[in-house]
Order: sequence, then structure tokens, then C-alpha cells
Amino acid sequence: MFHVMCKGSGMIHINMCTMLGFITTDVNITKELLTKALKSAVNDTFNMVSVDGDTSTNDSVIVLANGMAENDLIDKEDENYEKFRYALYKVCKALAKKIAGDGEGATKLFEVMVVNAKSKEDAVTLSKSIVSSNLTKCAIYGNDANWGRVVCAMGYSGVEFDLNKLDVYFESESGKIKIVEKGVATDYSEEEATKILDNKAVSVICDLNEGEGMATAWGCDLTHEYISINADYRS
Amino acid sequence: MFHVMCKGSGMIHINMCTMLGFITTDVNITKELLTKALKSAVNDTFNMVSVDGDTSTNDSVIVLANGMAENDLIDKEDENYEKFRYALYKVCKALAKKIAGDGEGATKLFEVMVVNAKSKEDAVTLSKSIVSSNLTKCAIYGNDANWGRVVCAMGYSGVEFDLNKLDVYFESESGKIKIVEKGVATDYSEEEATKILDNKAVSVICDLNEGEGMATAWGCDLTHEYISINADYRS
Repeated sequence: MFHVMCKGSGMIHINMCTMLGFITTDVNITKELLTKALKSAVNDTFNMVSVDGDTSTNDSVIVLANGMAENDLIDKEDENYEKFRYALYKVCKALAKKIAGDGEGATKLFEVMVVNAKSKEDAVTLSKSIVSSNLTKCAIYGNDANWGRVVCAMGYSGVEFDLNKLDVYFESESGKIKIVEKGVATDYSEEEATKILDNKAVSVICDLNEGEGMATAWGCDLTHEYISINADYRS
Repeated sequence: MFHVMCKGSGMIHINMCTMLGFITTDVNITKELLTKALKSAVNDTFNMVSVDGDTSTNDSVIVLANGMAENDLIDKEDENYEKFRYALYKVCKALAKKIAGDGEGATKLFEVMVVNAKSKEDAVTLSKSIVSSNLTKCAIYGNDANWGRVVCAMGYSGVEFDLNKLDVYFESESGKIKIVEKGVATDYSEEEATKILDNKAVSVICDLNEGEGMATAWGCDLTHEYISINADYRS
């Protein structure tokens, strides 16, 4: 069982920043493996969240375990450790998504999945670049499946990839649509794309078809309300 | 004499991007020195402009010289070359500032001057970090002398500096005000600061008091109108 608390809405960028997370669990585990499980979980979750690209201090995620579950002590990387690690990852992921979706002024959670990149490192760089792009975030706010902005943010990320192999999809509760195939816009329905984007949580999936590197980043849209919160607070 | 044309408003970031500049002059100069003068001028001007951090292709500044001024050919780096180089720099600087101030949705030009850093490289990195900060740009929009956001952007730039030596000023046509002295907020008048910021062109000056490195970057504020331009264009 986990208990969690999390705080943060603005000044959030890759590697947390102005975000606090507290997780407690009653599992019986050694300090070393608890730390290892947390680091593993945080790298793929909290460290992949960007709200506005600005950062500050206070970036911390803390996990505490009191052992009251009275399970056999987890002291090696066996099946039980793996189960715990995965559960902790799921908790961190759920919190990271909440932090992103609750971003200052945000109207929606924006999930960026980069799959089949040459390496995980490439996928991480690409996903961070897309999720941090002001222009892309404005398009998401405007319910526009603006694949040009997505591909553009991939282009200036510095990662080399073959545009002619790239497929791009948008997905939400309302469905999934392929908007780019092998680097070229498909004949997609703009009406359908807008319907898919008009949701509280929207994903873009960039499939590079080059390797097995995967990464997911979470952010939010860039809205009039973000400007109001951060410009008009004195009036 | 120079003739100039320049184009660009959004998707502009350090090293131009989606910006075109054409400069013609009737000076008589060798191709090598013309190129050298342009590169020197561009590095400190067009390459120091950021509108929204997004980038694309088309980033070009072109200079043409037809020799019709019939001056003695400039073929070495003498006094005449230096005069031409400085004139070209002034032209590029004026254009770069126009590009920045005309940024999408901008209500004002935001100039960031970093002085007395340990090196020019440090000053460049610091000024780019401040001018690209969404939060700082929102504060400039809101006429708020939010030195915390400025110093924060310096902090996350990766440059090491001694906060206890840092002075920060805001300046515009309406005056100049010191808001941070040796890393601590001064007892400045918020009313006066707001008056200074409520101008079409606002500068922040960060004096690190550590060396002789200097750099200036130009950008603009981040406004409701930027969001409207980039989110609502389909409605």
C-alpha cells in the first residue's frame, strides 16, 4: 500500500524543479533497494515532466517505508523486488501525469510518446523537445493536430533520424489518428483530428521505425490562463 | 549606404531560425572581408535574438556589395574595414532589435545585458537563458520587475557565478532602477519599477562583477496575443 502527496504547478521542467513528492509505503525492504527502486521509477516519470521550461529549487521526491506489511524483507533483486519496483513506478507515473495535467493554466495533459528510436537516449531527447515546444503546446491548446510543429521540435532537438521513416499519431479517449506516414502528411480528416484533440488528455505518438528506443514525456498546453497567472498577478 | 530588408516574427530563437535578412551596400570590399564582417556582426546581433524558442528553416542573412561607392577597395583589416564592420554591426543590431520587438504577440522589446561575467561565453549563455525564460517574459508583459525569475534563469543556465556579487537593474526610457545589489533585493520602489517597465522597450542589466565578459540578447514578452496567434488561428 502506498500513501502519496505531491505539490507543484509552475516552474516545472525536466528533472522536477519546484516539485515535491512524498510517498510512503508499508513494505519491508532494505534502504538500498528502496532507493534503487525510487531512482529507477523517478527517471521515467517525474524526470520526464515539463510545465513551462522554468525551474527552481525544492525538487524532491521522497519515499519512506516502515516495514509494517511484515512481508519477508526484500533484500535482493528478485521477483518481489521487481513487483515492488513496478508498483512504485506506476504510482510515480500517475503522480507525474497529475503534476503535468495540473500545470499552471493548463486545460489538458499532453503526453508525448517517442517509440522505435535508435536509442532510449534519442527517444528521451526527442520527447523532451516536443513536450517543451511553446508552439506545439499552443497548438494542443487550440485542438490543432499541427504535426509540422511536432516534427519541427524533433528536428531542432539535435537527434538525427530518418524523416522518411517517421509516423505520427494523435490519440485520446476519442480515438487515434495517423497524421504522418513515412514523413508525409496522410489524408486525415481535420474534423476527426480536432475531435481527438478536444480532450482533457491528448497523446502524440512519434514512431521513428529505426530501433527500439522508447520514452514518454508529460506536459500540458500553453494557454491564455498561463499568461494571466504569470503576468497579471499584480493587478 | 545600406539598404535592408528583414522578415520574421515567430519561431525565432538563438541563431536566427525562420528569419530572413537581406542587406545591400554600395561599398567596395573583397568578398572575404565582406563575409568576415557579416559573420562578426551576425554573431552579436541576429544570433542573439529569441522570440519563442521554437525554430525552423529559412534562417539566413545575406549581404551584397556592388562597389558603386567607388571607395578604395577594402582588402585588408585596416581602419576602413573597421569602420565598415562597425557600420554593418549597427545595421544588424537595429534589425535584430526590430525582429525581437516585432515578435508574435509582443507588446515590448526585452533586452538582456549581461556584463562583467567571467567570460564572454558565460555572458552569452546567461543572457540567452534569461531572454528565453517563459516566466520572465510573462513578468515583463505584466510590468513586474520580477528579479527572482531573472536570477532563477541565470541559476539554471548552468553557468557558475557568485550570487553575492550580482547586481541587477531594470532600465527604459523612463529611467533606471537597481533592484538587486550583491545578490539581495534593494529597497526599491515597486511603483517606480513598474513605471520603468511600462515601456515599449525594457532592458534588464545583470552585472556579475566577476570579470569582463559581456553579451546582449534580445527578445520580447510572452503575451495573451502570442497564445491567440498560435492556438486560435483555426477558429
